[in-house]
Amino acid sequence: MNNCLVAQSGGPTSVINASFMGVLDEALNCNSYDNIYAGINGIEGILNKKLKNLSAIPYDKLKGLKYTPSSALGSCRYKMKDYKCDSSEYENLIKIFEEYNIKTFFYIGGNDSMDTVRALSEYTKLKNIDVKVLGIPKTIDNDLMETDHTPGFGSAAKFIATTILESYLDSSVYINNGIFIVETMGRDTGWLTASAALAKINGRSIVDFIYLPEAPFSKEKFISDVRQRFEDQNQVFIVASEGIKYENGEFVATSTSSQLHDNFGHAQLGGVCGSLKNLIVESGITSRVKTLELGVTQRSAMHCSSLTDIDEAYNVGRKAVKYSSEGITGYMVAIRRLQNEPYKSDTILVEPSKVANHVKYFPKTWINKEGNGISKEAVDYILPLIQGSPVIPTENGLPSYTMLKK
Amino acid sequence: MNNCLVAQSGGPTSVINASFMGVLDEALNCNSYDNIYAGINGIEGILNKKLKNLSAIPYDKLKGLKYTPSSALGSCRYKMKDYKCDSSEYENLIKIFEEYNIKTFFYIGGNDSMDTVRALSEYTKLKNIDVKVLGIPKTIDNDLMETDHTPGFGSAAKFIATTILESYLDSSVYINNGIFIVETMGRDTGWLTASAALAKINGRSIVDFIYLPEAPFSKEKFISDVRQRFEDQNQVFIVASEGIKYENGEFVATSTSSQLHDNFGHAQLGGVCGSLKNLIVESGITSRVKTLELGVTQRSAMHCSSLTDIDEAYNVGRKAVKYSSEGITGYMVAIRRLQNEPYKSDTILVEPSKVANHVKYFPKTWINKEGNGISKEAVDYILPLIQGSPVIPTENGLPSYTMLKK
Repeated sequence: MNNCLVAQSGGPTSVINASFMGVLDEALNCNSYDNIYAGINGIEGILNKKLKNLSAIPYDKLKGLKYTPSSALGSCRYKMKDYKCDSSEYENLIKIFEEYNIKTFFYIGGNDSMDTVRALSEYTKLKNIDVKVLGIPKTIDNDLMETDHTPGFGSAAKFIATTILESYLDSSVYINNGIFIVETMGRDTGWLTASAALAKINGRSIVDFIYLPEAPFSKEKFISDVRQRFEDQNQVFIVASEGIKYENGEFVATSTSSQLHDNFGHAQLGGVCGSLKNLIVESGITSRVKTLELGVTQRSAMHCSSLTDIDEAYNVGRKAVKYSSEGITGYMVAIRRLQNEPYKSDTILVEPSKVANHVKYFPKTWINKEGNGISKEAVDYILPLIQGSPVIPTENGLPSYTMLKK
Repeated sequence: MNNCLVAQSGGPTSVINASFMGVLDEALNCNSYDNIYAGINGIEGILNKKLKNLSAIPYDKLKGLKYTPSSALGSCRYKMKDYKCDSSEYENLIKIFEEYNIKTFFYIGGNDSMDTVRALSEYTKLKNIDVKVLGIPKTIDNDLMETDHTPGFGSAAKFIATTILESYLDSSVYINNGIFIVETMGRDTGWLTASAALAKINGRSIVDFIYLPEAPFSKEKFISDVRQRFEDQNQVFIVASEGIKYENGEFVATSTSSQLHDNFGHAQLGGVCGSLKNLIVESGITSRVKTLELGVTQRSAMHCSSLTDIDEAYNVGRKAVKYSSEGITGYMVAIRRLQNEPYKSDTILVEPSKVANHVKYFPKTWINKEGNGISKEAVDYILPLIQGSPVIPTENGLPSYTMLKK
């Protein structure tokens, strides 16, 4: 028996299931594998023998996953120990693989998952164990090295830019419009936040200021910029990353100083939105400040996803199986951009050691001198990744999403 | 000269511009009017002579508004004085109408706007002034009397249910999933919150508990329900209205008692989400509680709107012009539901005095005995209103929205 195993890890995205379906479809078609197993809740679940034989499930029950957001196989944030210090987990894992005749393991995830791919493939080579390990990238944060971009980023960027367009229109209707602040995810990197620059009406970017973690945040500069812009146009639209920091390294999000509540008692403090709102209100610019934290919506909004992203996510999954059939192990399948107009990409193999425990930051050369906006190069980089819209199956007017029994 | 004037008021919706386009298209087609004016920023702007001749703008520059969310003509929250006490505003308004040869005024808005329609049409009749006034309903809250539902509600309900589906999947991936709370708008009524019940996977409603302002909120019952459900399924999904109240009338949103922050310093206090999170954490059920305030996204998400809603919004605008051509004044154009399968509606005329200063509450008979869920009747009522998706014009992968120069 020659079986394979696929699992997901880390934070969900809109297209991580598309990568899973790429693995499944190619594994079903290539005749390399007798059974395709899913590991439930990533490596943590696999270590507890939570394996599910997908070959025993009618394909009709699975195919809807291509257009279902979030991690259908469950997820974990489990980091395996260093096998050089303690190899017991690896021994357990290999025993389970032997029990289920798993000869190839596909792991879809981000930084930590690629560290698992690296360690496990090192261990199998070291011990001469016939198990191939391949990594498939995913993260909305787009912070993985060695790949032009990550599956999941394009859809999140599209949703963020769309929501910014709509929030901008919503915040522009009164005589006195005030200031609107949107907070995006992205951890220590500004890729997601930068996608705000894509939001244009009549060809003009509508966001006044964009703040990324890669540009140290100056309180004085911020207040002066916002005050000037508010005097000029009686309205300011700001987008900021959750991870922006002052020059001294302190997170802006945690530097709150007082409390404000709106009519329904929403604390407007805390988070980047709250901190920036406080700076504006306390400096006397205006008290009319509204905020929006996009929260988990930005990583699971399949209803506003990018077809390009789905296609690429599917393709990295498919290619991982093809590479495994060629005997390849110990690599992550990365995306290489070939050209922008028309946009074309293919896949390449990269060493997971170059991905794991590294962070791909937003280039400082793509941030303006003022530290409050991004360059045309950044827009040109992101724009091809949000193109196209999938046809999502619907039922009763809502997306018809698929859930596996876990 | 026989000119007409159209304006918008109150909070934006995804389809308030569709109603405006209904007015514009019918006014252009019916030959009753020489010029069509827009009042910018509602009655407040009109009183300051902020009128714009739309007949002088090429139609190509306007047609995109049908699929553009928010109030393209600007808005206000201005309540005119009672003309019986002080008629100076009304005299000013009529002078401006005379100056611009305005013979009909179409006002698109909610409760307060219908009060303006009532007062102004009373005043014109009293003074024998040849100006017709017609009201066109809008609000995502669905809280207007005398109309089966309001344009704007269906699209907001669709976005809320879609986002709940996606947030539920996002919050279901880990071994220990914790509790997720979504907060919707709706002021004192639970219509929007009830739309959470539409979110189903494999035919099963995914939301565990729904809390509406119409059902007094019991802290003890809430804690007991959530504790039990969390023990049963290790995951609870809760949707609550911003306006829920304790039995003593106190808003749950403002009854916060302590402070919690997540890793990025988001205050988890304040608002209904914060209050409910506090109740859960302080009662020791779990500390794993995530929250999502939908904020303005729910009233401006044209990218996830209902075609039925857009069509009806457009139609009430069109019908208002038709009624005015028949000499009708002093009415609001309401929607009457004719049947559910297939869904059919038409328009009727209702007296704005029956709408203004009243609130249509969610029926108590549609709330379950436990006060934490809604009945099938409610789902059957909402479901037809979210059907169909418009084809939104796009540019570079994003919606191509239209803004008027104000």
